[in-house]
Amino acid sequence: MTDAILSGASAPAAVTTSAIRGSRKIYSAPAAHPDIRVPFREISLTESSGEPPLLVQDTSGPFTDPGVSIDLTAGLPQARAAWIAGRGFEGVAPRAVKPEDNGGATGARLVPACPAQRPVLRARDGQMVTQLEFARAGIITEEMIYIAHRENAGRQAMAAGAGDRRADGEDFGAEIPTFITPEFVRSEVARGRAVIPANINHPELEPTIIGRNFLVKINANIGNSAVVSTAAEEVEKLVWAVRWGADTVMDLSTGRNIHNIRSWIMRNSPVPIGTVPIYQALEKVGGDPAKLDFDVFADTLIEQAEQGVDYFTIHAGVRLPYVPLTANRVTGIVSRGGSIMARWCLSHHRESFLYERFDEICDIMRRYDVSFSLGDGLRPGSIADANDAAQFAELETLGELTKIAWDKGCQVMIEGPGHVPMHKIKANMDKQLKACGEAPFYTLGPLTTDIAPGYDHITSAIGAAMIGWFGTAMLCYVTPKEHLGLPNRDDVKTGVITYKLAAHAADLAKGHPTAQLRDDALSRARFDFRWEDQFNLSLDPDTACAFHDETMPKDAHKVAHFCSMCGPKFCSMKITQDLRAEVAAMGDNERQALEQAAAGMKVKSAEFTAGGGQIYVETGVAPGE
Amino acid sequence: MTDAILSGASAPAAVTTSAIRGSRKIYSAPAAHPDIRVPFREISLTESSGEPPLLVQDTSGPFTDPGVSIDLTAGLPQARAAWIAGRGFEGVAPRAVKPEDNGGATGARLVPACPAQRPVLRARDGQMVTQLEFARAGIITEEMIYIAHRENAGRQAMAAGAGDRRADGEDFGAEIPTFITPEFVRSEVARGRAVIPANINHPELEPTIIGRNFLVKINANIGNSAVVSTAAEEVEKLVWAVRWGADTVMDLSTGRNIHNIRSWIMRNSPVPIGTVPIYQALEKVGGDPAKLDFDVFADTLIEQAEQGVDYFTIHAGVRLPYVPLTANRVTGIVSRGGSIMARWCLSHHRESFLYERFDEICDIMRRYDVSFSLGDGLRPGSIADANDAAQFAELETLGELTKIAWDKGCQVMIEGPGHVPMHKIKANMDKQLKACGEAPFYTLGPLTTDIAPGYDHITSAIGAAMIGWFGTAMLCYVTPKEHLGLPNRDDVKTGVITYKLAAHAADLAKGHPTAQLRDDALSRARFDFRWEDQFNLSLDPDTACAFHDETMPKDAHKVAHFCSMCGPKFCSMKITQDLRAEVAAMGDNERQALEQAAAGMKVKSAEFTAGGGQIYVETGVAPGE
Repeated sequence: MTDAILSGASAPAAVTTSAIRGSRKIYSAPAAHPDIRVPFREISLTESSGEPPLLVQDTSGPFTDPGVSIDLTAGLPQARAAWIAGRGFEGVAPRAVKPEDNGGATGARLVPACPAQRPVLRARDGQMVTQLEFARAGIITEEMIYIAHRENAGRQAMAAGAGDRRADGEDFGAEIPTFITPEFVRSEVARGRAVIPANINHPELEPTIIGRNFLVKINANIGNSAVVSTAAEEVEKLVWAVRWGADTVMDLSTGRNIHNIRSWIMRNSPVPIGTVPIYQALEKVGGDPAKLDFDVFADTLIEQAEQGVDYFTIHAGVRLPYVPLTANRVTGIVSRGGSIMARWCLSHHRESFLYERFDEICDIMRRYDVSFSLGDGLRPGSIADANDAAQFAELETLGELTKIAWDKGCQVMIEGPGHVPMHKIKANMDKQLKACGEAPFYTLGPLTTDIAPGYDHITSAIGAAMIGWFGTAMLCYVTPKEHLGLPNRDDVKTGVITYKLAAHAADLAKGHPTAQLRDDALSRARFDFRWEDQFNLSLDPDTACAFHDETMPKDAHKVAHFCSMCGPKFCSMKITQDLRAEVAAMGDNERQALEQAAAGMKVKSAEFTAGGGQIYVETGVAPGE
Repeated sequence: MTDAILSGASAPAAVTTSAIRGSRKIYSAPAAHPDIRVPFREISLTESSGEPPLLVQDTSGPFTDPGVSIDLTAGLPQARAAWIAGRGFEGVAPRAVKPEDNGGATGARLVPACPAQRPVLRARDGQMVTQLEFARAGIITEEMIYIAHRENAGRQAMAAGAGDRRADGEDFGAEIPTFITPEFVRSEVARGRAVIPANINHPELEPTIIGRNFLVKINANIGNSAVVSTAAEEVEKLVWAVRWGADTVMDLSTGRNIHNIRSWIMRNSPVPIGTVPIYQALEKVGGDPAKLDFDVFADTLIEQAEQGVDYFTIHAGVRLPYVPLTANRVTGIVSRGGSIMARWCLSHHRESFLYERFDEICDIMRRYDVSFSLGDGLRPGSIADANDAAQFAELETLGELTKIAWDKGCQVMIEGPGHVPMHKIKANMDKQLKACGEAPFYTLGPLTTDIAPGYDHITSAIGAAMIGWFGTAMLCYVTPKEHLGLPNRDDVKTGVITYKLAAHAADLAKGHPTAQLRDDALSRARFDFRWEDQFNLSLDPDTACAFHDETMPKDAHKVAHFCSMCGPKFCSMKITQDLRAEVAAMGDNERQALEQAAAGMKVKSAEFTAGGGQIYVETGVAPGE
């Protein structure tokens, strides 16, 4: 593994580069657009398998491309620069950085800003700027073309005979097409059912789409706090998170140097970056929520929009009258932004300025195409508080705000809970779809029990997989450190892989046409004892290989037709391979006799009998072939 | 942590003892039965909380009781001995141990047997012996009384005002009573809807029950293989697994010393032990499935029944005509027992001797009250093979065998898959209930995707939580090493905790009347910054504390009103506590005005409006009180 090195005291020092085990990065262009280079990860299989490589979406950016030399001070290549330039936005003088933007850090405590310079752009008066505005006007942007090609990973293989798995799933009203066309992307964005978070000041972005008719996406949170963490750690966490598959990253930093750390993150992020601007606004007023006002908030929006942040969490649904609804909760208000705004409302005995001046917030965000992530400030923080009056009152308000933002031309997604027992999850999805006009749902978990701190990536993966199946478009990860401490690099990886598997389980259950290709390829590798292929097709090839090597470290073991679990004599896979050969060698009469016996057995369920007979009809292939 | 020491070369050396962090073991007796001592774990909360200790089921046996001195050579105290003695079974001369019972191991390679001696008991001709027989005869056994008391953990707190949560869940037709009476236990066993695996030769057992109207149980697999692991490791894995909450343990050993290792496990297990006798039978015939016959199998059943094994996995549903149904599968037959029997059937071109002579197997197992765990030898090993004809054909046969076993007086549970995508899970539960007359379902996961080796405890916890919610009575754990290698001690713990949380999520969703008490207690501790209480109420207090200490190691931090995630200024919990005080301090008029405002807001859903109004009606408590 090579490292990209940057000298400098508390600035980013090194990030993880190199290709992922068994994979190589390739670029592919849509037929009609040779200039649009979409990255994919190609997982090669051993030659003996006779199988083609498997193509998967690749969120890792240039960091996994050995052909790109990474220089964090210069920032990433600007894939979108030409597209954005073609839209004729106004170059503006950047807002001057103020001492409070970095929490007053000075001297040795001040992290230097990323030296990479980008022009600061803004829409002119009356000019279309957001993907939603273009979509409504019938214009297909380069981002839409890019995304359509990206989402079609695997669909070529499907067309080549692997089959369309849509009929196999239960999609709860989603409408996933066989192929994704740029026009389909446009139409989904136009009707607000998908968002493309893509600030015009983030030219390094490799665009992605969040909507329930596309692959389920995941978000990883990073960010320092007043207690621990440095800029170097945060940039490496970003690179590390996208390496393992984070589709977007939220920078939840608080404390000092928040502006300058963000400059490193923005200039080096291939994925959309989200923030919660109220955090920085609160820093600017010395940490007292009562001192917040619209002006400091608006100033912060502009500051971050100019830096290129792609989506903002805005807790405009926390209204004054809802605050008393939380008073009897077991865990009150657990959202930081929600509690800050509740504090403000009660201190002033006034309606939230985020709610009252929401249209002005839209006007600011629209000019840079910053997408809304309407925050669920009143989400339940415990099983006891799930689906309560406060939570659903806010959700209704988020629906009201969605329509305002849409009218203003802004893209919107909606944040969701939280802590919810399994039997109350579907109601969340159903209510969100109804209240918010099918705007994409973006949920944290939900955690399905409160009793496993240290394992909340798992308590929440259960809920995340389920709500993803029901229609949630993006799942915000939870790490093992949730409720206990700040995640480190290992926790970030564990969180990302856990959520990738939850999102994939959701794609399978929805009947995504091609999701199962990877399961099938891995299962065939497993059955054939192609250990290297099994490792490389997995979400985390390094861990899969390391676990195997713990008990069977030798190279010869990687071609062994057994593993340490059962040893050679007890290997069911080995026995079955032999059986399969025998069934194939049976005479037709014998095999048919057995089939008839199976079909004729006293089975009580007519359903089963139909299924039992059907298998041969469907495949048209005799057993053993 | 003290250790129980035993000298001896490859025999067990030391196991983990000592109480679990923040808990103490207590014993409690049902009112009418002062002689029946049921263990519980009492989690004490800090005095300032004003809350009573929380009582939970305790599977860990005497190992966590500082008052019991552990001597592995003597075995555990025999809680059931007097009950069994009262039933007048016949003492028989034990079957002589043969060299092949230990795979021919001799000299230094032979693990010595556990020296603890127990009389070998067997039912006399015509004598009632199984819990099912007693139950049908209207007899409430001591085991049933013990179990009723054990399952009522927490129900006292409920009666004292914590409320019955049954109406809050969705139980899919389960019938969980407010209180568990011994008579209820009897009736559930009598109708075959629950099993009490309790061999009359396992006097050390602390009985438990497996059925969908009781708490969802989990099983941990241990066992050496021909490749690695020693007796010492296996006994420690047993003790370690029950420490963290395994309700039963399966010993899946293959290879040498299988008989003697089992003797250590049986004499030192407080939980039911299950095995797969075909594994040992195969060892006895030199590893060639074709050489198996009924006699060597029956001999193995008697050998293991005499040792005290509580339940046997018997793959009698793998019938000759079903074998060709697996030929086109992506992963064929993945059950070891299933592949062995399929191999036997094809080699001899004969119907399985397990199926043909199932009644004789029942006769043997009945005499010791060994419960059936009817194995799913044709379970799917990949997403592609889920819910296929082979799997469901076998399930129908398991239903047929269930009725035979019940007629013979044997207790039965049914094993289930495997690898199943989320949308196909419920069909498994529904078919099992129907085909097998509501006999308890005991599932491995299921794994909801194939693409995450190294994380299959999580891919399967998703499926396990869901199928547990739908009605599965026991969940067989999967560790992170699944598909890759033999689990070590850490993997066993990770697997157990992961499945405890999945089982608990299922209990919550089913509306178990008291499951949420623990979530609520932990969430209150979290909200009150009672860090020690939060750790101790969690499933794994050691890890929760260690994670917290990584960033905030000092003792003072354990009373801090914030954590390293947000730091003091951004702590939503702290802010909410202040808010709550303010709402409480509001005048009645002001509060009512806000409430009316919230109620009067333009909300589209009548359902929500009703809920919003209801919160005060239900609690009868003004906000902030």
